[in-house]
Amino acid sequence: MEERLKKQMEFILEVDKIKFIGRQTYLSDGERKENDAEHSWHLALMTALLSEHANEKIDVRKTMLMVLVHDIVEIDAGDTYAYDAAGNATKRERELKAAKRIFHLLPEDQAEELFQLWEEFEACETPEAKFAHSMDNIQPIMLNDATGGKAWREHQVKKSQVEKRQESTRAGSETIMEVAEEIIRRNVENGNLKNE
Amino acid sequence: MEERLKKQMEFILEVDKIKFIGRQTYLSDGERKENDAEHSWHLALMTALLSEHANEKIDVRKTMLMVLVHDIVEIDAGDTYAYDAAGNATKRERELKAAKRIFHLLPEDQAEELFQLWEEFEACETPEAKFAHSMDNIQPIMLNDATGGKAWREHQVKKSQVEKRQESTRAGSETIMEVAEEIIRRNVENGNLKNE
Repeated sequence: MEERLKKQMEFILEVDKIKFIGRQTYLSDGERKENDAEHSWHLALMTALLSEHANEKIDVRKTMLMVLVHDIVEIDAGDTYAYDAAGNATKRERELKAAKRIFHLLPEDQAEELFQLWEEFEACETPEAKFAHSMDNIQPIMLNDATGGKAWREHQVKKSQVEKRQESTRAGSETIMEVAEEIIRRNVENGNLKNE
Repeated sequence: MEERLKKQMEFILEVDKIKFIGRQTYLSDGERKENDAEHSWHLALMTALLSEHANEKIDVRKTMLMVLVHDIVEIDAGDTYAYDAAGNATKRERELKAAKRIFHLLPEDQAEELFQLWEEFEACETPEAKFAHSMDNIQPIMLNDATGGKAWREHQVKKSQVEKRQESTRAGSETIMEVAEEIIRRNVENGNLKNE
């Protein structure tokens, strides 16, 4: 096998490990929690189907690839729960180290492309990164809503925490932000989110 | 919420169920078997990274979307193991019914687009569908190879069965077919695949 293809296949096998990275969100059955591969699959499909709702025109292929790889760093750095303050303090350092190791299994041009795409996602300044964050934000609250707020209740999450997390949703899509607001309103009403 | 967005969100929640559809392939840890969402995530990323090896130029965005949705029919129809002859006899009918129900949760234009994309994958005639099959074929044998042929040994799979399954790999990518041949050769040598 030529060197380039060999590196590509090594990366592709290595990232299989993303399937073992658990998240805090329950799947729609309310039984099992989601992993990063499942989450990323969902975001990529949502990107393709919902791109018409982006505030600014986005490059759909680029955004799909961005969401497919945005959590790969968690293979080394682990998932940091959105409402874990201590974990979030060291998140950037841990994830940067992971990005350098994992993406650089690829041939140099593709390693750079994916590393930059991950950095672009993290910076959340381009239309693609903003929309990717809208998807990344709405997907777990959609599942939380479907499971009667199971993860929220377990963690006693407050309305204000979810609202803070959704701040970046509006920048990518006003329309998706309306969906988020509707979900939050409903879950405050039925007591799944603490209103304080 | 406007009707169009409501339909999109209903579909997006419904397809969460693909995460419960188990496959026969073990993940790279050799412990847990893969599900359709994880598999489809892997294929979409592979499509983006390996498209340079396609025999004919492909529309990468279209192919990524194709592999993201190619197994959604299994939410109703279940996964049919590649080497299950009885299951494969009724597969088409079961999957067609599923495709009609599930894709048509979407607004009509998107329902048609995804239904056609799934039909295009199934027909395996366009460059995109051929390449999607190359990805769909190489990914499980890569994982089987990584786990010492665990699923193959459990099912006593023969070299000839894997070769037959890989027939469509060459049509999408001669280069990926070489990877498949190398994997088959190695696993016949070490006894993971029965050579008869």
